[in-house]
Formats: sequence, structure tokens, C-alpha cells
Amino acid sequence: MAKSVKKKLVYFFGGGQAEGKGTMKDLLGGKGAGLAEMTNIGLPVPAGFTLTTEVCDYYYKHAKKYPTGIEKEVETHLKKLERLVGKKLGDSNNPLLVSVRSGAAQSMPGMMETILNLGLNDKSVEGLANKTGNRRFALDAYRRFIMMYGSTAMEIPRELFDEEFDDIKTRYTRTRLKIRRVKIDDNDVNEEELEELIKRMKRVYKRQTQTDFPQDPTDQLWGAIDAVIQSWMADKAITYRDVEGITGLLGTAINVVQMVFGNMGEDSGTGVCFTRDPNSGKNTFYGDLLMNAQGEDVVAGIRTPLQLIDLKKKMPVIYKELKEVRKKLESHYKDMQDIEFTMEQGKLYILQTRSGKRSPAASFRIATDMVKEKLITREEALLRISAKDIEGLFYPVIDSNIDPNELKKQFFATGIPAVPGAASGIITLTAKSAELLAADGKKAILVRKETSPEDIGGMHAAKGILTATGGKTSHAAVVARGWGKCCIVGCEDLIVDYEAKTVSVGKTTLKEGDEVTLNGSTGDIFKGRLPLIKPVLPPSYNTIIKWADKVRTLKVRTNVDTPYDAENAIKLGAEGIGLCRTEHMFFDTEKRRLAIQRMIVAENSTDRHEALQQLLPYQRKDFTGIFRAMEGKPVTIRLLDPPLHEFVPHSEHDQKHLAQTIGIPFSTVKHKIEKLHESNPMLGHRGSRLSMTYPEILRMQVRAIMEAACACKSKGIKVHPEIMIPLIMDDKELRILADLTREVAKKVMKETGVKVKYSVGTMIEIPRAALLADRIAHEAEFFSFGTNDLTQMTLGISRDDSGRFLPDYVDDSKAGVFADDPFQSLDQDGVGVLIQMAIAKARAVKKDLKIGICGEHGGDPKTIEFCNENGFDYVSCSPFRVPIARLAAAHAAIKQRDN
Amino acid sequence: MAKSVKKKLVYFFGGGQAEGKGTMKDLLGGKGAGLAEMTNIGLPVPAGFTLTTEVCDYYYKHAKKYPTGIEKEVETHLKKLERLVGKKLGDSNNPLLVSVRSGAAQSMPGMMETILNLGLNDKSVEGLANKTGNRRFALDAYRRFIMMYGSTAMEIPRELFDEEFDDIKTRYTRTRLKIRRVKIDDNDVNEEELEELIKRMKRVYKRQTQTDFPQDPTDQLWGAIDAVIQSWMADKAITYRDVEGITGLLGTAINVVQMVFGNMGEDSGTGVCFTRDPNSGKNTFYGDLLMNAQGEDVVAGIRTPLQLIDLKKKMPVIYKELKEVRKKLESHYKDMQDIEFTMEQGKLYILQTRSGKRSPAASFRIATDMVKEKLITREEALLRISAKDIEGLFYPVIDSNIDPNELKKQFFATGIPAVPGAASGIITLTAKSAELLAADGKKAILVRKETSPEDIGGMHAAKGILTATGGKTSHAAVVARGWGKCCIVGCEDLIVDYEAKTVSVGKTTLKEGDEVTLNGSTGDIFKGRLPLIKPVLPPSYNTIIKWADKVRTLKVRTNVDTPYDAENAIKLGAEGIGLCRTEHMFFDTEKRRLAIQRMIVAENSTDRHEALQQLLPYQRKDFTGIFRAMEGKPVTIRLLDPPLHEFVPHSEHDQKHLAQTIGIPFSTVKHKIEKLHESNPMLGHRGSRLSMTYPEILRMQVRAIMEAACACKSKGIKVHPEIMIPLIMDDKELRILADLTREVAKKVMKETGVKVKYSVGTMIEIPRAALLADRIAHEAEFFSFGTNDLTQMTLGISRDDSGRFLPDYVDDSKAGVFADDPFQSLDQDGVGVLIQMAIAKARAVKKDLKIGICGEHGGDPKTIEFCNENGFDYVSCSPFRVPIARLAAAHAAIKQRDN
Repeated sequence: MAKSVKKKLVYFFGGGQAEGKGTMKDLLGGKGAGLAEMTNIGLPVPAGFTLTTEVCDYYYKHAKKYPTGIEKEVETHLKKLERLVGKKLGDSNNPLLVSVRSGAAQSMPGMMETILNLGLNDKSVEGLANKTGNRRFALDAYRRFIMMYGSTAMEIPRELFDEEFDDIKTRYTRTRLKIRRVKIDDNDVNEEELEELIKRMKRVYKRQTQTDFPQDPTDQLWGAIDAVIQSWMADKAITYRDVEGITGLLGTAINVVQMVFGNMGEDSGTGVCFTRDPNSGKNTFYGDLLMNAQGEDVVAGIRTPLQLIDLKKKMPVIYKELKEVRKKLESHYKDMQDIEFTMEQGKLYILQTRSGKRSPAASFRIATDMVKEKLITREEALLRISAKDIEGLFYPVIDSNIDPNELKKQFFATGIPAVPGAASGIITLTAKSAELLAADGKKAILVRKETSPEDIGGMHAAKGILTATGGKTSHAAVVARGWGKCCIVGCEDLIVDYEAKTVSVGKTTLKEGDEVTLNGSTGDIFKGRLPLIKPVLPPSYNTIIKWADKVRTLKVRTNVDTPYDAENAIKLGAEGIGLCRTEHMFFDTEKRRLAIQRMIVAENSTDRHEALQQLLPYQRKDFTGIFRAMEGKPVTIRLLDPPLHEFVPHSEHDQKHLAQTIGIPFSTVKHKIEKLHESNPMLGHRGSRLSMTYPEILRMQVRAIMEAACACKSKGIKVHPEIMIPLIMDDKELRILADLTREVAKKVMKETGVKVKYSVGTMIEIPRAALLADRIAHEAEFFSFGTNDLTQMTLGISRDDSGRFLPDYVDDSKAGVFADDPFQSLDQDGVGVLIQMAIAKARAVKKDLKIGICGEHGGDPKTIEFCNENGFDYVSCSPFRVPIARLAAAHAAIKQRDN
Repeated sequence: MAKSVKKKLVYFFGGGQAEGKGTMKDLLGGKGAGLAEMTNIGLPVPAGFTLTTEVCDYYYKHAKKYPTGIEKEVETHLKKLERLVGKKLGDSNNPLLVSVRSGAAQSMPGMMETILNLGLNDKSVEGLANKTGNRRFALDAYRRFIMMYGSTAMEIPRELFDEEFDDIKTRYTRTRLKIRRVKIDDNDVNEEELEELIKRMKRVYKRQTQTDFPQDPTDQLWGAIDAVIQSWMADKAITYRDVEGITGLLGTAINVVQMVFGNMGEDSGTGVCFTRDPNSGKNTFYGDLLMNAQGEDVVAGIRTPLQLIDLKKKMPVIYKELKEVRKKLESHYKDMQDIEFTMEQGKLYILQTRSGKRSPAASFRIATDMVKEKLITREEALLRISAKDIEGLFYPVIDSNIDPNELKKQFFATGIPAVPGAASGIITLTAKSAELLAADGKKAILVRKETSPEDIGGMHAAKGILTATGGKTSHAAVVARGWGKCCIVGCEDLIVDYEAKTVSVGKTTLKEGDEVTLNGSTGDIFKGRLPLIKPVLPPSYNTIIKWADKVRTLKVRTNVDTPYDAENAIKLGAEGIGLCRTEHMFFDTEKRRLAIQRMIVAENSTDRHEALQQLLPYQRKDFTGIFRAMEGKPVTIRLLDPPLHEFVPHSEHDQKHLAQTIGIPFSTVKHKIEKLHESNPMLGHRGSRLSMTYPEILRMQVRAIMEAACACKSKGIKVHPEIMIPLIMDDKELRILADLTREVAKKVMKETGVKVKYSVGTMIEIPRAALLADRIAHEAEFFSFGTNDLTQMTLGISRDDSGRFLPDYVDDSKAGVFADDPFQSLDQDGVGVLIQMAIAKARAVKKDLKIGICGEHGGDPKTIEFCNENGFDYVSCSPFRVPIARLAAAHAAIKQRDN
């Protein structure tokens, strides 16, 4: 506080050099640093100076007082600016006009204030008129300035100015055009009317502030600086920072910049261009411009803009200059740039440059092209590609050419986006009817309160899935993700009425049979069938993904349950299966379902054994198919995990049917199923606990796995089964089950005479297992962190029930407890710490223990970085996230090397 | 293995001195060490020698071979024994008889073999006959020996011997008594018949073993040693060790001991005595004896035994000797002893002594008396008292005088014993009818599938509670425990039919209105009303508990929710409330229930606020009552914890009633309640998460607490409120809610003008909270470990659903994963490690952070020891466990000091 070292508070830029530079964002804000950088690399940037963010910080830490000496420093820099451009602020002959703009280290578009045309007063407006030979332009600039200054710096309600303008536009219309009730356009207001308007606005100003509109440009300047600095703490700015999670900034910088005008005649103009085509990524110069216009005219879209190539004819010198700017910028920033420029009476000014937004396909093409052009390295190219870019290549989207108003009209509701992509089809409320529709060649959208394993068939048949409840890791979301199928969950406003066969939101009701479109990337749901576009993989995708594979050390496996999905995952680059959930196999057909149900309601172990014998060939067949598809890559098969009540029917009707089918009294079936009910099934009788109570289930499954493996091997197909025991909480428990597993495996190998290398490992998904990881590592050949359950238990949050409160915890505008949804991106502070502890303990005991992750987090880039840092051997994710994981693993490897 | 140091394999005892001693249990077994010890302290013990457990260990580690030299050592010791007692094994004049007995370091009653009367053969049997002048006795001893040796050492089926005996008993009966079909008694078989029997048994022996019955005593001895050593690995012994969790033993020792006979005439006899009265604990000599009888006759209970005092008249010398033994034993073992003795022809032998089993009341009296007598210290006295002893003083029990057969006849079912004590009354299936019965002065037993908070009133009114589902920490168990009310849960065989108003087990059905008796200590349920006995507190209880309070450093608080329970807990010695669950208050009356329900179904925050305003005075009143009862002791009040759906009715009927009462459409009520449904409520929207979503609930509760506190203080009542925020998983979350709490507290204090010292803390019950304990400690003034939930989440076990698999995990005969039920006794390997980690982290940040435990474990002695070791400030448990906790805390303090 009391330090006497004087800080530099204002930084100048212009005339080919700047006091600041591009890396000084924290001090000069993004805009100030950018202007300095562009100046330094020799671009024709309007001159000006920047008040640092430390000024803002000081201001708020000292009861809204400026640091001493600031007035002097501003005055000095203003003088310098005037000298450089040869104009003077407020001058009646050749007046300098400046803009005063906010600009923090991070972009907060539209959240803070800007004042343009500063320096105009009753005298300098005439100077501007003379100098430009366009009095109307000068007067228009003046009235704009009064309005902006009055409303922004003096907080005069903008409506008061608008009312005056409207009045002039209509009153003068009446007298001039003799037409009633027709209001003329802003641009049709003439000089005389503008003069009248300026008078009236000054009157408004006086009425509201009790002072005259300031004629002294220095007063104007400080008024504007005040306004900008105040806007840093405006409600909307604070909220925006909260929402976006922007923290740690000192404040906003304030940029005072020479105004340039694109509307000073036919040798003036303004435009926006991209250094490459942002749609295709092609290396062509691409942009729009308007002659004799201001930037806002381009944005407003009133006139049809010219193509950049037209400038070549109209102003070849400027075009050439612009092409040089393009080259300079790309070689400096090494990325495709989005440039704003203005030509003022034949002189080119670059107003802004930034990395250009581009389509996913363009991202790939630009990255690979730039490597070819030696602008960037392969690793830099990899870092340019984001997970979203890859998503954009694989999932269909709603055609962006659709009229936004039409889209708005069709809007129905919003849920939680669970699986990206878009889908449209006919609403069906039961899995069965979805299957029937699909068999009929029709597109179905399955809409349910929630889904359960019984719905698998219909879920698979549907083009998209929508549920009223559940979070991103609910049953519907997890299953749909495995298929890359568009899915929206937790649409809390949606009332699904199975009896009436309707779905309603508020007063809008849709019937079964109506069409609907889902946007799985945003969670938006629309009535009717909207046009969809399916993207095509660009060749550069293959280049990038190959580079990624070379760089990364982390293996990428996939979570699949069927031979079909396995084949698909292989195509997407999976290097093995990290999680094959055997229970999904039980739902595949009516016969299988019946066999597992028979097993569950069995009254004695003989009946249970018999039912299991019926299941054995099904499982063996599936495993055989999977081994075949995976061609010797490791296949981690998880033994039965869900509680048994997930397999049985719960309606009386279905229970009666089951009883009849298998010839057991209904009351027995009912009682058996009633007894399976659990208060908290997530923490109930499932996973290894089933094997402890019913070792015969484990025996059957291990037998099916090993018989399939032996059969494959004897046919020359390489196999690498890893048998995974879920939900382990204790080393003794694992030992008992692993011993049993090995006993059965040995038996099968003896019977078949084929020896297969297999391993037995466990999931670490219960906190206690992590705490006892050293003891458990003694018994396990591999660990796979089941981070879904581990997160649920470590945080005490049921993912299926989290919808009502978790959003508040993740939402930064509310509590902001979590930076990310802990079910999407691993909670590194809590679950992550537990995992690190477990790995340290386990590897202390077994140095080479194979360690993977098979929760939903396995496909999340931040989590993949965590896994890479913490010595995981592989991550495993749903097939459609495999490419993302490959890229993220490469990113992680590069970052780790660079640290 | 190849060590050449020769180990001593056989230890001698007799003639006033022994080679071993009492501390050598591991080597000599419990029996061998005891015999050595008794010999050493000068008791008249039969002489003999012990083969060490190392012999057994060697035997099994070397393919059932004995260590070299063992034969020699046995021979030497046998010679020594013969010399000492002046008799020779197998001698035809004055034969020595020995017993060969097993005896491991831990008692395994009945699991291993014993052979008696060894040394008898065709010659020595006549020597014994001559010497005792009782040929029948000698022959009877011989036939017993043949039977025992044949069946035990040679594994001849016992039935073969029994058949011969039966045949003789019936055949000779016919010829002698001319009575058909009457079988005479063993004792009526005469010498002639015994001779015949011996011949036949030797024939059986020969037929079965192809060898003659061994006449050489050395052969007999080694045969017997073989038999005993084999029995160590008999199936039943292995199972027993598994079941009892006996591990780490080398094997059994083998004791070869001189036989003495109490049936050698009227100067012989046998008896059992206690050094003090095992029922009252009174310091009187107490025992039974039979003259001219063997030990088994006493056990068989054929003849009515004499009182010890009768011996004084019959054999005053021996009586005096026995009294000296009593004194010697008590001053040596410093505990009440249970002594077995035999008199052989006027000579007293002490066969065994051990700590005597005693009633709970006797435990207290003996412990305090012995301190008075300076036999033991106060701390030793404290260590003599167990939790079970205290339980035995507080809970009613079924009268032990009831005929066991009657008890068997009345047996109905067995459940999980949740709260000890016994209760009998009329079966009622609804809480309401329990309340009505109680109002009518009748005793009700509430029988439910499970209980819910709505049942509180009826649960309180009932004398006992029985549920078909749930574990020891289910709702029923936890609530009943708070009241010390007899409770049995998880009676899985019980089918409760609410419609038919019956409860059935198998084919037995009881109706509502029938009587039933529960034994909450064993879990047994009986039909009808059995007589109960309510114990009376002995004065020595107060002495012991005062000593305990002096020794312990750990404070003992209690978990109570009402002023009434608080008063009761104070009487039992609670030093504060560690957990006051505010939600139970909402169920106290219809009005309160309605207010909370109105709050839950409120459609907007105005209605919600209004409903909360109605609850405020109720809560304030309860808090006032509790503060008053606790007289300035700390009161930890937990803010609302359970999910809201626990408060609302779930039947359509009740929902309609609610809708009507509060004037909201039924459909709204139904929809609201439907939306509250959760898949895993334990991990759902509850605890702090409710306060995050509905801060107005927290505001109301904190206001009620602080208004009550301020009101009390202004009336001169000391108050010490500790506001506890449950289910915290993050420091930021706690900060938000703690800030809100302090804001309301400040406001109330300002309004009332009264300043109250209060603190704000949190429960650590989610694993993540333990992992982030340092960060959370910054925000908290105290921690209370909620080990119920922490156990559920760390182990991934829902306590309500654990009934179907957890028993397997705790049962040693099965998996034996846990030594104790982790919901009863803290899982120190898992949850304990997490707690230790959390405490270390938290205290590193806040050295003096107050730390307590308020889960069910707070009343468990093992857990209390853990808490004491790990720096807890207090434990908190249900009122009726407060005395147990005070004692356990004293035990822990003594143990910690001694370590």
C-alpha cells in the first residue's frame, strides 16, 4: 500500500511501436494487449493508449479514487497521441475523435461500456464537417456521442433520447412528406433535423443532470473513463463473471483509441475477413466488406456486403496491403485469424484480430495444412483440436440453415444434454412400440419417465431417447452413450402420461405418434421433424488422429457389451475393451430374459442351477463374438453387477405372465420379487455380493467366458480375457471370489485341453477398496477404477437423484461448489485424491499392476489428463468417445512433457 | 527346521511343583498351564505331564510324524509320575490310571477327544478291584475304557459297543428278572454281566481292527496320544475354530494326568464350587457336591447334590482344606473362581479352576468387594465389568425360571436383536392402534414390515417393536434404541399381512390382538405373554460408574430429540447432547406433521414461508425444553437431515386427505410427492442439500434454536448450543450454509438483545468430507463423525438393505470378511483409516477442533477405544448406552495408559 515505487499506469501504442505487448493481457486487458501487439508487428492500427487494469483495481480498493498522478499521465499520453495523428481533441479545424473502451484480460462481450466519437462538441463538430466535407455525417456522429455519453456516463435513461429522436422522425415526416403515421428511417433524417435533435438532446441532458453537456474534451474523456470503470462492477458484469467462472482478474483496462471512419465517402469502407475459409478450412482469403459504411452497418446486415475479391478491383493497393496483413498475422499468431478492418479515405486500419471461429471440419484441415506449411508443429496442431471438434465430426446436427424464428416457434422443452447429436422421429412411450416402429422402417423417439434394463431393445431401436428424470449418468444416458445415440434426460418439466399416451410441457401436449426432434448437444426439444445434417469425416481427421496415437502413451479402450458394438469400437480405434457389462446380454431376447428371471425366482439351488445352464450358451456365444471382433486385444469382462430386481418384471400383469410361463405359483413369484426390493439399490445386494450369495452365477459366467476363450483359441483366434470382479470392498472378499474364478477357469481349460492366458482383477469403485488398495492389490492382477460408483459413494450423491440439487452445486451463479459436474469430469479434489492414494498404495505392493478407468469419466478430456499424470495404463470409454479420448490422451502427453 | 537346539517337549507337574506355569498357555494349552499353575501355588492337583502344542505343530508340519526323542521324553516323565504317586501303569497290584486330555491355548469345549481310565488291562483291572475293594467299579472302569479307546483311538463306531451293552442289559434282564422288554439301568448291571460285556467288547474291537485290544499300557498311551492329536484336525474342531474366529494356535497340548475317583466309597466324592455367590456376588462359599460319585454324576443331575456346608459336618478336614484352597485361589487369581474337586478316599484333589461365570449384579458386587478387600485395584475392577454386565442391569429379561420346554413350545421366530431387553404385549400392526392401546393402559407390541417416521407416535407407545425387514441400524432400531425399547428387526421369515391383519411364520399365523413376547437380547420371538423380570440397580453399580468417570478422559454425550429423553439421559450420566435430530420433532403431533407437509407441497415460496412460520414455535418450544433439561451442557442440534419424502403420506387416501386439509388440488399434492421419489434416497436430496435448495428451512431452524437459546439465557438458564450442518461434502458448501446460519443467529441476538455463545460445525459423514477435512476444518468450529452414513458410503452398503448379504460377510463360518458387523462396531480398517486421516488433516489446520462421534458406533466399546486412541473429545450414543460408554471410555483410558 505505502510503497513508493511508482507504477506505470498508462501504456501508449501507435506509429509502429507500443509500450506494451501481446503477453501483457493481465495488465492491459485482451484488447489493449492485442492493439499493442499488432502495433509492434507493424500493422496499421489506430493509435491510442491504455489505462492498466491496476488502475481499476486501485480504484475499487480505495473507495473509488484514482491513483495519484493518473491525470497527468493521461494528459501526457493524449498529447502524444495528438502529435502522432496530427489532430487535436475538440479542435474546431481538424478534430481528433477517440473511442473509450473497456477490455479485461478475459473477454466479456457486451458486458461493459464503450463510448465512441468522444471529442465532439459544438465547435469540433463543424471542424469534422469541414474536414470530411460531410456535415450530415458529423452531426450524426455528434448526436450519437451525446446519446451514448448521456446514457452511459450520466445514466440518463436511454428512452428519453429515443423519444426525442422518434418525435423528430415522425413530426418531420408529417411536414415534409405529408404522409401520416409513417416514420422515416434514421438515415433519412437530414442535417436540419439533426441540428434540431442535437439541441433537444442537450436539453434532455441538462434537465437530467442539472448541468450543460460538457464542451471541454478533457471533461468528456474523464466522464467516459469513469463510465467504463464503473461498468466493471455493474450487476450484469458481476453476474457474467460468476456464470462463466471468471475469477482472479484485477479489473478492466481502459483503451483510448483514435476513431477512424469507414463512412467518409467512397474511398472509405469497413469489413471483416478470415485468413482462411472458416467453413471448409481451405487456405483462401475470405471476407465481407461494405464501402462507405461503419462497422455497425456490416453487423446490421442492411446492405448486401461485397466479397473481399471485389476490393481487389476497387482498391487494389489496399487489397494488396490487406493480403500482406493476412500473411503477417498468420505467421505471427500461427493460427487462422478473424480480422476487423476499416478504410478511412484510402487508408487501411486494422481494428482487431483474433483466432477465428471455425467449423469442426475446418479445424482439422487448418491444423494439418499449417503443419504442411511449417507454420506449426504436429503437437501444436493436435492442441488446436478440441473434443468438441471431434464430436462435431461424428454426430448429426440440426441444419443450421433453418430460420431461427421457425426454430423458436417449434421449441418444446429443454432437458439435460446426455449424448450429443440430433435425432427426429415419432414419439413412442414404450420400448415395445419403438421396436415395432423400427421393424416397420420408421424412426422412433422413445420418451419415458425413466428407462430400465427391460427397455434395452426399444432403446436400441429408437433414433433418440428422451427421459423426464435422471442425470447424465442415468441408465438412459449410459446406455445411449454406448451407442452414440442422441439422448436427452432429466427434462423435469415433461409430464409423461403412459395411460393417456401423451407428453406435456406446461399447456402444450403431444401425443404418441406425433413427431419430435431432439438436439442432444444442447438438450433442446422441438415439435415436428426438423431437417438434420450428417457430417462427413474429412481426410485431415485421419492425419490428426494418427499423430495423436503417436504422441500418446495412455491406451484407449472402450466400454461395449456386444460383438456388433465391439466391431464398431475397433473402427473408431479402440485398443481393447475396458468394460464389457455382461448383464446387458440378459436382455437381448425374450428367451434370455426368461432364463435370468427363472434363475432369480428359483425356489432351490437345483432350479437355479438349471436356469443358469440355459443362460450359459447365450453368454458363451456373446463372448465368442466379442473375442473374435477384438482380435486378441484385451477384453475386460465384468461379472454380473446390477441388483437382481433389475431383471424381473414389476407390474402384476407381467409377474403373472412370468409365473405362468415358468409354472410357478404367482404368489411365489410376487413374494420373491417383493423380497428383492431395496431402499437404496445402489448400495445393495449387487456386484460381488451376488457372487458371495450365489457363487453359482459366478461359476456360470466364468465358465462361459473361458469356454468361449478356449474355443476361439483352438480355432486360431487370439484371445486375451480379463475377468473383472465388481464392487469389491475387501481383500478377503476378493480372494474368495478370485479363487473361485481361477478354480472354474482351470477346470474349463482342463476339460477343453486348451490353455488360455487370462487374468483376474477388480473394480475399485467403493471408497473402502481405495483405502485398502494395498491389501487388495495382493489379490488382483489389475485394477479398473469404476469412477461412476466411486463418485456416487465418495460424494454421497446418487446420480439418478442428483437432478434436483446437483445443478445448483455446479452452477457458478449459485453455489459453485464444483467447477464441473462430478459425474462428467472427475472430481479431482475428492475422488481424485482417493484414486491417487489407492494407486500409490497398490503400486507400492505391485509395481506393475495394470490400472485403468472404466467410468463415464474415461471419455472426458480433463479426466484423461488426470489419468495420464497419475500413471494409468488405459482409459476406457463409450465407442463414440474413443477418438476424443485418443486426442485427449495426446494432449495430456504433450502437456505432461511440457511441464 | 534343521535347528539342532533341542526343544523341551514334555512338562511335568506334581508333588507341589511344576515345570510349566500359568502364563505358558500357548505352549501348554489352557488346561496344561492351569494344572502347572495350580501345582505351583500348592494346590492338591493330580500329578501328570503335558506334551506341548509344539509337538502337535511339528506333527502336522511333518506328515504326521512326531519329533524325534518324544517317546523317550514321555517314558521318562511317565516313570517320574509313577514314582511320585507310588503306582505303576498296568500294575496288577496297585495300578496307576491316567486320563489323556486335549487342551489348546483357547478353550474349545467338547470339540476334541479325551480318554479316561487309561492303564487298565486284564491284569490291572483286578489290581484296581483289590485296591479299591470294589470289583464292580473296576470292571465298569475297564469297559468304559475299552469303549472310549475303541471308538476314539481306533474309530470303531460307538454303536457297535452300545449294541452289545444294550443286548446284555435286555437279555440278562429277561433271565434274571423274568420281565420281558424291560431294559435295566447301566448301574444295575452286575459284575458277571460286566465281565461278559468286556469280553464282547474286546471281540468287537478285534473284529473291527484285526488286532487284540492292547494290553501293554505304553501302546494304550500312544494310541490315546494319537487319538487326541488327530482330533485337533477333526472336521468339527476346524469348523469350531472357524466359527469362533480362533486363529494363530500351534495346536493342542496333550495332558496325561493321574486319574482320581470320587466313587471309591463314602469317603470319596466330587463337587463344583464357587468362591463367591455367582448370583448375588456375596462373599460366601457356594457349591454342590455328591458323595461317592463321579463328576459326570453331578452333571447328569440324577441325585440331588448336597450343599457345600454339609461337607463341613461330613468331612471337616477336607472342608477346611477346601476353604484354604478357596482363599489361596482368590488371592492368587484375584477373581471369583469356579472350582472342580474330587475326594478320593479322604484325599482332596482340585481338578480345575477358572474364573466363574456370574450374573451382571454379581459382577459389580464382586468387583467392588474385591477392591475393598484390597485384592484388586479400582482399575482392575473396572476392567472386570463388561458392556453386557451393564446391559444386564438396565433391561428387563424373560424370567429364567420358565421351563425350557415351555419356552421351546412357544417359540415363534427369530430376528436380528436390535435393542436388548424383553417385552410382551398385544400385537398391533399400525402405529395408530398402538397409540390407542397404550392410551387404554394396555401393552402393545408394534409389528411392521418396516417403520417410517410417520410411525413414531405408535413406536413410542408400544412396549416393543418387531419388523420383518431392516438391520440393526434401520429406522426402527435407531429410534427404539434411543428409548431403550426392546426391538427386533429383520425377521425375514415373518410375513406381515396388513389387510388380513395377521403375522405368519411358515404355517403359524398370529392375529392382531394375540399376545407375543420379544427377547430383544437374542432376537427370539415367542407366542403368548411370558413372565418378565425387571432388574434392580445394585449399589455397587454407582461405585463402579463413579470410578469409571474418574478414570476416563473421553466425554460421553447422548443422542436425544426431546426434553423428556434429555432428562432421562442426564440421569444416566450424559454430559451433553451430541446429536439432537430436529426432524423427529415434526412428527410429534398431527398439527406439526401438517405444517411440515404444507411446507413441502407449497407451490411458491410465500406458502412455504408461511408453513415454516407455523413450525417455528414448535421447534422453539422443543429447543427450550431441551436447553432447560441440559442445564448448560453442550447441545449439538443437527439441522434437517432426511429427504422430504419421508414426511409426506404415500397412500392415495392420505394424500387426498392432505390435499383437502390444506386446500390444494389432489393432483398437485400427488405430483409434488411423486417428484420427491428417489432411487437411492440415502444419497439423495437431503441434509445440507435441502438447505442449499431451500435456505428458508435452515433460516427457520436456526431462528428457532437461537430464539430458544436467547429466551433461556434471559431467564438465567445456561445454554450452550452447537448448530450442526449435516451431509457436508465440500468446504465451499459449508461456508455458504455456515454464513447463512451465523447471519440468522446474529439477527436473532440483535432482535432479542441477548448474546449467546454458540458454535457452528458439521458432520463428517461423506467420504469426500473426510478427504477434504483440512479445508472443511477452516469453516467449522467442530466435527462430529456421523459414522452410520460414513460407513454406508465408505463400504457402499445400504444399512437397510444389508440384511440379505451382510450376515454372510460377518459370519466367520462363511466369508468372515468383517470381524464385527461394521454398523455395530466401527470398521477400523476402512472407515477408521478415513477418520484418522480426516482428524490428522483437520487438526493440522485447527489444533483444538472439537471432535466427536454421533453414529450408532458411539455406544460400542471397541469403537470407543478407537475414539479414545484417536483424540476424540467425546462420543455420543443413545441414552441407554451412556453408562456402557462411560465404562468403555474408562477401559480405553486404562488400556491406553498401560500401553
